[in-house]
Amino acid sequence: MSKEQQTVGELSEGELLARIFPRLNHSNSVLLGPGDDAAVVAAPDGRTLISIDTQTQDQDFRLEWNNGYRTTGYDVGWKSAAQNLSDINAMGGTAVSLVVSLTMPPGTPVQWVVDFADGLTAGIVGLGAADCSVAGGDLGRGREIAVTVAVVGTMHGLPAVLRSGARPGDILALAGTVGRAAAGLALLESTIPVGKLDAAQRALMDSQCRPQPPLAAGPQAAKAGATAMMDVSDGLLRDGSRLAEASGVALDLDPIALKALAAPLEAASAPLGRDPMDWILGGGEDHGLLVTFPADVQLPSGFTAIGSIQAVAEGQHSGVRIAGMPADTVGWDHFAD
Amino acid sequence: MSKEQQTVGELSEGELLARIFPRLNHSNSVLLGPGDDAAVVAAPDGRTLISIDTQTQDQDFRLEWNNGYRTTGYDVGWKSAAQNLSDINAMGGTAVSLVVSLTMPPGTPVQWVVDFADGLTAGIVGLGAADCSVAGGDLGRGREIAVTVAVVGTMHGLPAVLRSGARPGDILALAGTVGRAAAGLALLESTIPVGKLDAAQRALMDSQCRPQPPLAAGPQAAKAGATAMMDVSDGLLRDGSRLAEASGVALDLDPIALKALAAPLEAASAPLGRDPMDWILGGGEDHGLLVTFPADVQLPSGFTAIGSIQAVAEGQHSGVRIAGMPADTVGWDHFAD
Repeated sequence: MSKEQQTVGELSEGELLARIFPRLNHSNSVLLGPGDDAAVVAAPDGRTLISIDTQTQDQDFRLEWNNGYRTTGYDVGWKSAAQNLSDINAMGGTAVSLVVSLTMPPGTPVQWVVDFADGLTAGIVGLGAADCSVAGGDLGRGREIAVTVAVVGTMHGLPAVLRSGARPGDILALAGTVGRAAAGLALLESTIPVGKLDAAQRALMDSQCRPQPPLAAGPQAAKAGATAMMDVSDGLLRDGSRLAEASGVALDLDPIALKALAAPLEAASAPLGRDPMDWILGGGEDHGLLVTFPADVQLPSGFTAIGSIQAVAEGQHSGVRIAGMPADTVGWDHFAD
Repeated sequence: MSKEQQTVGELSEGELLARIFPRLNHSNSVLLGPGDDAAVVAAPDGRTLISIDTQTQDQDFRLEWNNGYRTTGYDVGWKSAAQNLSDINAMGGTAVSLVVSLTMPPGTPVQWVVDFADGLTAGIVGLGAADCSVAGGDLGRGREIAVTVAVVGTMHGLPAVLRSGARPGDILALAGTVGRAAAGLALLESTIPVGKLDAAQRALMDSQCRPQPPLAAGPQAAKAGATAMMDVSDGLLRDGSRLAEASGVALDLDPIALKALAAPLEAASAPLGRDPMDWILGGGEDHGLLVTFPADVQLPSGFTAIGSIQAVAEGQHSGVRIAGMPADTVGWDHFAD
């Protein structure tokens, strides 16, 4: 049998690790890498940021989508890097190291795992986190593929930026994108064959399979005096509500800014007959960065103002508004031309 | 429907988190706990130990065993704590914090998850790691239950103790137990109904379901000048070979010490007609601590000498020996009375 057809079940854990290890990202931030019971990672300012996230087959990705696209190990590796690095970014920090646990059926092709390692490394380096090492991991068997990454990061001496710091009068700003990954998901689940997608549609699909969180934006925002910050992983409405609730304020979204964000989604919304505003407001997984700044701060490059922070009167619920109206009672017809 | 019969699929993530959160262990080592994109954990000496491990249903545990025993959420929570805390212990460190990702089918009873949280906390506190907070986590759906824990720890300024530091002439010592979890596994997989197990057999089964790694022993060994250290999670022969190979030495196990370790396993080996030495040499999951010390060091309390470190001559393989003979060619008949 050729090497390309080998499955994971035919190799020992040691043999599989030997195939993966040279493909992972390594840097000086890891004082002791894989091979012992734990890794040792530098924590230069005496604190460590930590977060954990899992992607499970058929929940977070399908091996084969309705439109015929087959998810590669490279996609899953990239997305694992992106969503975990984004959590550190969303605190204003920089990722220092990550550890990976990969569970898979014994029939998984070894090539899939090799591609996973390549995608993980490409995601780390391609998103601008080349100092983030893969410090260790765990391989195991299961009925479905599941990848869990835990990532540690540093704040470089700055305070972490929480969800709870937004104040009335602050500007609400976004770095990166929203809605693209949701539009891409709609294409993957559509009957438009993957081979027939044009470049703009393909790029939306790529935003779902290999998201591009703006990793420079978090530390920049922290330095610029951001008052609150989080990444948009479950959609502007849901995540915005979380930030609003944690801060005891209301987020007021600017409909003109929302429409500008929706324009690039037309490549998917037009052929699928969908309202792109649903993706803008409900779509996660781009891992754009939602940040509040005091009104007198000049927005760092890469940020766009998309609204403002309002006070919540006694007895009112904190939450998300659009042009001053509670978002959950606003129909998207309001934005029709 | 009563609260006891609710399933995970009937609750939102927020509702489920609200049920779990108050049951988790919290301490001052976490500077910022759950609720933001990442947690912030103290790293007092500027370094962080990190490790990750997954337990998957039907691979690492069965919900119902052959002998009728049903694995509780409490068991899985305890074992998750134990195996991850053990990885930090095996470097000579102390666990500061852990993050948990729990994947499960929507039909999982909420009570199972509540029991999981209780078992995780009981494991952390009961094993002596009360300063280790649960700093955050992730909940998701999957076809099977899978738990991944990543744990961070501190060395309190000491160097981490690696697998690679053993030197010829060192004493080989063990803290905690070996073989008990494997004997317990054999009972779980046997046809002796769980209700018919006597106290000694039940205790062996508990060693599989709720292992007791000796968490004080790692830091004690580091302070006492241990030259190499690892936890025995895959058995004395396999893990011993890893330590031997990393250090470029041979481990020589003392057959008299091995027999003493095997004696308490008779409660399982006798009724099952098994050789307890198989469990001593091949059984993992007790997470006993295998440590080498210079010959002039007095062993810290809780450690038993089980052999010594020998040089490897040119052309010889590093590995494990028993009474000077390569372990892979030694039959256990050599130890017959």
